[in-house]
This record gives sequence, C-alpha cells and structure tokens, in this order.
Amino acid sequence: VDPERVQLRLAADHDRSIRALMVVHNETSTGVTSDIRTIRAAVDAAGHPALLLVDTVSSLASMDYRHDEWGVDVTVACSQKGLMLPPGLGFNALGERALAAAGDAGLGRSYWDWRAMLAANADGHFPYTPPTNLLYGLREALAMLSEEGLENVFARHRRHAEATRQAVRAWGLEVLCQDPARYSSSLTAVLVGDGGDADRVRQVALERYDLSLGAGLGRLAGRVFRIGHLGSLNDLMLAGTLCGVELSLARAGAGTGRGGVEAALDHLRGD
Amino acid sequence: VDPERVQLRLAADHDRSIRALMVVHNETSTGVTSDIRTIRAAVDAAGHPALLLVDTVSSLASMDYRHDEWGVDVTVACSQKGLMLPPGLGFNALGERALAAAGDAGLGRSYWDWRAMLAANADGHFPYTPPTNLLYGLREALAMLSEEGLENVFARHRRHAEATRQAVRAWGLEVLCQDPARYSSSLTAVLVGDGGDADRVRQVALERYDLSLGAGLGRLAGRVFRIGHLGSLNDLMLAGTLCGVELSLARAGAGTGRGGVEAALDHLRGD
Amino acid sequence: VDPERVQLRLAADHDRSIRALMVVHNETSTGVTSDIRTIRAAVDAAGHPALLLVDTVSSLASMDYRHDEWGVDVTVACSQKGLMLPPGLGFNALGERALAAAGDAGLGRSYWDWRAMLAANADGHFPYTPPTNLLYGLREALAMLSEEGLENVFARHRRHAEATRQAVRAWGLEVLCQDPARYSSSLTAVLVGDGGDADRVRQVALERYDLSLGAGLGRLAGRVFRIGHLGSLNDLMLAGTLCGVELSLARAGAGTGRGGVEAALDHLRGD
Amino acid sequence: VDPERVQLRLAADHDRSIRALMVVHNETSTGVTSDIRTIRAAVDAAGHPALLLVDTVSSLASMDYRHDEWGVDVTVACSQKGLMLPPGLGFNALGERALAAAGDAGLGRSYWDWRAMLAANADGHFPYTPPTNLLYGLREALAMLSEEGLENVFARHRRHAEATRQAVRAWGLEVLCQDPARYSSSLTAVLVGDGGDADRVRQVALERYDLSLGAGLGRLAGRVFRIGHLGSLNDLMLAGTLCGVELSLARAGAGTGRGGVEAALDHLRGD
Repeated sequence: VDPERVQLRLAADHDRSIRALMVVHNETSTGVTSDIRTIRAAVDAAGHPALLLVDTVSSLASMDYRHDEWGVDVTVACSQKGLMLPPGLGFNALGERALAAAGDAGLGRSYWDWRAMLAANADGHFPYTPPTNLLYGLREALAMLSEEGLENVFARHRRHAEATRQAVRAWGLEVLCQDPARYSSSLTAVLVGDGGDADRVRQVALERYDLSLGAGLGRLAGRVFRIGHLGSLNDLMLAGTLCGVELSLARAGAGTGRGGVEAALDHLRGD
Repeated sequence: VDPERVQLRLAADHDRSIRALMVVHNETSTGVTSDIRTIRAAVDAAGHPALLLVDTVSSLASMDYRHDEWGVDVTVACSQKGLMLPPGLGFNALGERALAAAGDAGLGRSYWDWRAMLAANADGHFPYTPPTNLLYGLREALAMLSEEGLENVFARHRRHAEATRQAVRAWGLEVLCQDPARYSSSLTAVLVGDGGDADRVRQVALERYDLSLGAGLGRLAGRVFRIGHLGSLNDLMLAGTLCGVELSLARAGAGTGRGGVEAALDHLRGD
Repeated sequence: VDPERVQLRLAADHDRSIRALMVVHNETSTGVTSDIRTIRAAVDAAGHPALLLVDTVSSLASMDYRHDEWGVDVTVACSQKGLMLPPGLGFNALGERALAAAGDAGLGRSYWDWRAMLAANADGHFPYTPPTNLLYGLREALAMLSEEGLENVFARHRRHAEATRQAVRAWGLEVLCQDPARYSSSLTAVLVGDGGDADRVRQVALERYDLSLGAGLGRLAGRVFRIGHLGSLNDLMLAGTLCGVELSLARAGAGTGRGGVEAALDHLRGD
Repeated sequence: VDPERVQLRLAADHDRSIRALMVVHNETSTGVTSDIRTIRAAVDAAGHPALLLVDTVSSLASMDYRHDEWGVDVTVACSQKGLMLPPGLGFNALGERALAAAGDAGLGRSYWDWRAMLAANADGHFPYTPPTNLLYGLREALAMLSEEGLENVFARHRRHAEATRQAVRAWGLEVLCQDPARYSSSLTAVLVGDGGDADRVRQVALERYDLSLGAGLGRLAGRVFRIGHLGSLNDLMLAGTLCGVELSLARAGAGTGRGGVEAALDHLRGD
C-alpha cells in the first residue's frame, strides 16, 4: 500500500465519505509488507478522520509491529501463524476512536460486536464458549517468545527470509516482492518464470517430499509458489525445506534446480 | 567379523570349549556390518557346534535380516531404533538349539530366563509387568512398516546411507567403514581426520543447530562422529540433518565444510 | 418453545413481517428441549412462510435430531459438545428455502456468508483458513459414533440423564425442567431450593473435588447448577461425577447431600 | 514378614549361611505391608550380618519409606506405580555394605552389575541406552509430588485406602489383609467369599464398565480381586472406581452389591 497514494486519495475525499483505511501488514499471498507507520503519517498529513485498520495475521510475532506507537485504530491478528498455535483464536487491539465508531455503527452484528466481549472480559470472562485449549497453548507460546526475546525472534525470521531469497536467486527464479524495503520475514513468494509450472512444483513437493508449499492465489495462480518461514523454525528446518524445494524444482523442470541450498547455507554460515 | 577367522578359530577349538559365537549385525559405534549368512557358513564349515547369537539392535527393520534363513540360533533386538519407539522393549528370537542350551545352562538367572517368558507367552501373558504403552506403539510401528513394505524400507535406508557417504566425501572426510560391502544403512561413522575435533563438531551441532550427533566411542573418541539415518526418516529430514553437519563442520573448522549437501542432493535427485 | 403459541403467533402475523422462527433444540442453560417436529407442524398449520432455524449446539450427536425429516430450514451445530472435540468448528445444514433467502438478504456480511463457503466447498476447499486439526478430530469422532451406533449413543445419554434425575430427587432437589417429555439427555439443570446457594456448591465442587459444574445463567444465577452428561461418557464417569455433586452438596449444606449416588446406581444397575 | 520369625531364624543361622533377607514392603498381590523398621531391628537383635533388601515397587511415593533411616541395604523401586509413569525405569538405592558385597559376589552378571552404572553415573551418563522420555516424565512426576508434599500424598492414599475398606465391608466382603497395622495404602485385595467368583466380577467390570481390576494370584486365584488406589488419584476417581466395583458385584452376584459407595462417601465426607 503506497502511502503517497493514500494521502492523495484521502485528501481528495472532501466529504469524508471514506470511513476507514484497511491495510494488510504482511500480505500472505505475495510476501509483500506495507509500511504502517508511514501510512499513518499519510492519513494524518491528509487531515482525514478515517480509521486505520491493520491485519497482522501473518506478521504478528514474526515481524516488528506496534499498535499504539504507530497510531493504529484496530489491529486484527490470529493464533495460527507467528503465535504457533492451531487456528481458532482471533485477537483485536482497539483504540479509543475505533471504540467510539463501533458505538455509532449501524451494521447489524452480534458475534462480531466488541461490546459483548468487552463487557465480559472486564472480569475475565467470555460471552461465548472460549477455546480454552488454545488459551493454554497461547500462554505457552507467549512464554516461548518471551524466553527467546522478541528482537531475537524478529532477527531469526529476517535471517531465514534472506537465506530463502538467496536460494531463490541461485535457482534462477525471482522473488515476487520487488522492493527490498518491503520484503516479508514470514514467507517468500517465488515467481517460477516462463516455462515453469508452480503448481507442478507444489505437487512434486507434496507427493514426493511430503513438503507443503503455498499456492499462488488469484492472478498469480500457477505462476507462484510460496515458502513459509514463520513461527517455530530453526536453521535446519529451513534448510530441509529449501532442500525440498530444490529437489522439487529439479524434478518439475522449473528453474535450475541447483545451487539454492548452497547459497542459503552460505547466508546461514554467518551469524 | 571376518568369516575366515571365525572358521579357523573354531576349527582349532578341538575340545569344543567355545559355546557360542556372538556377532553384532550392525555395529552402532562404527557403522560397519557383519555378513551373518557367511559367518553361519563358516561355523558350519568348521563343523563346530557353537551357537550363533546375533545382536540386531541397530539393524532390525532398517536392513535385511533373516533369523531362520540364515541359521541364527538367537537374535536380540529392541524397540528404540528401526522400530521407531522409545527404549523399553527387547526381543529375542530363539532357535531349537538355543532353547535346548538354555535348559542345560548353569548360570544363575531370573529376569533373563526364557522359560518364565515362554510359559507365560503361551497364552498371551507376561511373567512381569509389560510396557503396554510400547506394545500399542509396536502395533502401529509394524503397521507402518507393512504399509511401506520392508523392501522399500530397506531401499530407502540404503539410498539415504549412500547420500550421506557422498556428503562425507565431498566434505573431505572419510567414512570409517572401509569395505563398501559392509556399509551400514542405519548410521554412518565419520572420521574427522588430522587437525579436526569430532567432539567440537558435535558440540557446535548441538548448541547451535539443535542437532544431536553420535560420539566416537572407545579409541575412536574425539576422532569420529556418527550420523544416524534409521527409522522414520524421509529425504528432507536427512537433507536437513546433512545441512546441520555441513554448517557445524564449517564452524568447527573440520573438513571443507562445503559441498556435502550438494553431493547428497545429487544422489537424492535420482530415484 | 410451545408449538401452540407458535401457531397462534404466526397465524396473527397477517403481513408476514416475521421472517424466521429460531428455536434452540436443547437449551443449555436450562436442560429443556423443544419439540422441533411439532413446531414445524405448527408453522405449517399457520400457513406461514417463516423459515425454521434450529440451534443444535448441545444436542447434536447426543439426542435424535433430523434436519430433513423434520423440515428444518437451517440447522446450526458445533464441534465442542456431542462431537467431543475442542471448540473451533461450526456446522450449518441448509435447506433450499434458506439458500434462496440468503440470496435475497440485505444484511451486510462477509465471514458468515454461505455463498463463499458453498463455492469453495464444491471442490473440497475452504474460503478461509480451516482448522485442519479439528477436521482430523472430526473424522475420528464420527468413526466413534458410527462404531457405537447413533441409536446406542442416544440410549446411553437417555439412561445417564435419567440416572442423574434420580440422583437429584434423592438429594431433595428439583430438576429445573418440569415436563418429562422435554427432558434433556445432554445436561440436567438442578434447582438448589430455598436456603441453598448453587454457586457455593459449584465452588466446593471445583476447589475440593476438581469437578466443574455449570452455572445458572441470567435469572437462574445462584439458584441453579448444571450437570453435563454428553459426549464421551460412560457409567463410571457419570457415577464419579454424581459422587462429586453429592459430596459438594453435603459440604455446601444444600439438599440432603445423601442418597443420590445410590439412586443413580440403582438406575444404572438395570440395562 | 514377621519380625519375630526373622530374628529366630537368623539367630539359628550359626554358620551365617544366609547372605541376605529380601522383603517386599507392600505386597502387590495381597495388599499387605511389612514393617521394615522392625524387621531391621530383628536382624540387628539377632546379630546377623545378612543384608536387608527391600522391594518398594508398589509402595514408593504412595506410603512412607526411608532407606537410610530404616537401615536398608538395597532398595528396589520402579517407575510405573506411585511415580505415575509407564514401565521402563528401575531404581536401586544402595548402602555401603551392599556395594561391598557386590564387589565380592561371584554370580555372573552384566546388565545387572552396579559397577558399570555407578562408573557412568559419576559424570551423569548411562552405560546403556537410557529411556530419556521417562527421565523427562520422572522430572515432572517428582515436581508433582513435591508440589503436593509427600506427607499430603501419603495422607491422601491412606484416606482412599480406608474409604475403600469401608466399601468392602459394606458389600459384605472381606479385606484380605487381617492386621490393620499392615494395611496397604496402594491397593486393597478383596476376598469374594463363598459362592462368589472374583474373576467373574473382574470380567464384568472390564467388559461392561471399562474398569480393570487386579486378579488374585497363585492360591488366591478366583477368590480375590484387587482395587488399585495409588498414584495420581483423587476422591472422584476413587468414587467412580468403587461405583464400578459395586455395579460389577451386583451383576456378578458377589456380595451384597450395595452400600459400599455410600460407606466410602461417608468416609470421604470427613477431611
């Protein structure tokens, strides 16, 4: 999401018909991040009252993110990515302006209504059946993140993402994200290039190597596969994954199918 | 164990003072196998009545082994290697001559006495507390092995062992086992060579890469480390393991620390 | 839900302003069921086009329920009760009229929109991240229910519910549900009666006996506690539970605190 | 084991042909304990050098036991009873005299030889493959016991054992152990009495109530069943167990099949 376009678009919204700006911090389908802090500044520069809503589903606990400091009104997250749990928990961080807007809102809603949750949460309860099992898991996940230290967690993911990109280039393939400042630390989307079939690579990886790679979505279907490197992952898990991609590329006839693991190991050899 | 030496030694035992010949099928500390079938032939050629006792702890269900067909009198195995379970179960396969010898034996024994076990097993019981949890696990392990097919299991381990040896050579190191006919499919012992410190490699692997490598034992201490590749292991688990060894070698300054993974992947690229 | 009142109310709705009738099959807060088949007949007798929507959250797979045969338009269920799984899966069974109504509906919706789910389900996919872990669990839960046989599952729960009610009466307490035809097989809500404090009983049960009893909700708060007996439960689990209630009642000074377990065992003694 | 008989027998052993006295602290087949402290005194009073060896397999961590304070030479224990783990770990506590005797002993031995274990344990290792999984479990079991406090653990088991005996008497059956001073807190063996068939009770319990009761062993076969109440057990687990025994007795036509649970609950009602 381009902050300049945000500012221009909001500045042109003279009658304030735009109520909210919704941004995905880390776009799971492309491996491209958005610069939330600068987008916030763009909204402010436009002097526009739109709320800033941010989806951090695939970034939270894998990349630095700051709800308060960056002036976000609503942050949405969930359990099954960087928090290393099964799906089943969603999280909302709410600012004062968002709460006020929710009070005024006219959309019919029930389960998604923050007011029932806030009322029950006040004394530690839930208005509906909570997934208690996941709350125990969350306690442990947070303990693991604290033990490693968030800064170290983020650095680990940056290092793994860079090793992955080195592998992609060595395979003669292209990282979908073209702006290094917007690289994702959670996942890397890989363009297979002319003559390659990303879905064939994925099929070989799954059937032959028991390795599940993400598919290209929408107009990227068949042209892109995605390598996830978020959550509880260490150097050798990443290395094994990249070995699987290299073998799958070779067998599917996409890219060179060689040298990527070596390049990744070269990066991992450093600190 | 050299069959010729066995034959000579037994032939020279004119008063039949040797009661049994004990052989380890796959020597865990060195990654060297013995040719049980030929050893049996050597015993027979010597016309000696010694029993043939074979330890298959680290070979059973990873390499071909035939108690009856090879004429073994007692085979010993356990749960925690190729059967993919925790430690806690031991197995004995007994031939008629071994049972007869046990009846005559004078050594004081209780827990190790086959007779109590055979009597209770006759109607499906155990004379002592059985590890029921491991028996359930064993049922599942045997189902897994049957589903894959024993021939395929053995071929998978042979392929992984060869990929590992290719890696070792590319690192400029030496496989401890010098006779290709006696290579182990379960594990590979690696000689670090002059100037290298095998225990330093193991320490780096454990502390930095969460990878546990076997130590050299006895006179091989410090000169050898061992890579296990038995049990439930697929191509990417092996590849991740070899990446960990390569990174550890580089960091510990042993061997070239390069090219081994590439060589292994080259082997895995084939069928 | 009284079918006669339903019929009268719908018959009086001359301008068809009522769009849907929503009924809970088994009311979790009271242990009272509704007769869906008769309610359907009442809607039909009134000649009213309202949709019949039924919540089977705490009845499905514990009590007989028939979406098609009873003419229900929408059935809602979930994973964490009779299906014996953690929370995290919701199920909708949809009739043709419900699907048509959804197409016409004006309420803003996204996650709750059946159309996205139906489109993706057509070839076995989900439009959003599915809880794959729970789908594996569901497969096993359905296998367990099939193995026991649904009729046997329902009979087991009826038997446990009756044993529980026998215990309640022996304790000198009252089952909240006053109509035997509407008893729940999933849970029993118990009125503690004058002088008793249901929340004190629950507190003792939890703190002293590690037994979690349901609270009275709304105007029943403090007057009612609830005993769940659904899902994977056998005679001795129920008996242990009732022992815990009996001990808690005695310690909390509610009811007689005696004789309930004996009465329940008398019922369980039969088939 | 009667201390007086021990003293007489040892005093009569003028040529010191008895090398060791072996006592089971809590006899699993009968639910009868022996008074180790008094037996030690009897050995000492006889002035006999025999070693005192004690089996605490089914008592350790369920009943008070003191290796050093009671002057025991060798204590044997294992993982699968009071320590709440699967089978697979055995423990020996050794006194100085036992170690000296082991050095002098002439019996052929290898796996059971303490010297190999002591040598390896000196720096935290094992001479053979250790069941690492059980060692992690042991750490947690010991933490659980420490958290509850050993005195509280022992008191809990005493209370459960007494509640069980009250139930047995109410059923018109007999506790096998006739001396209250020698009651076991780990298990209760129950004499079914004339006309009853203990194995039929056990069969009903298993098939109909999914409850596994211990069999009578040796000359007690068919006349005795055993109720275990050791390890991680709370009031309601015990109560559910006793409900299962009561229902099984009724169905098998042994004892009155009534009133036992009520009697046990009466005991549990107190502190």
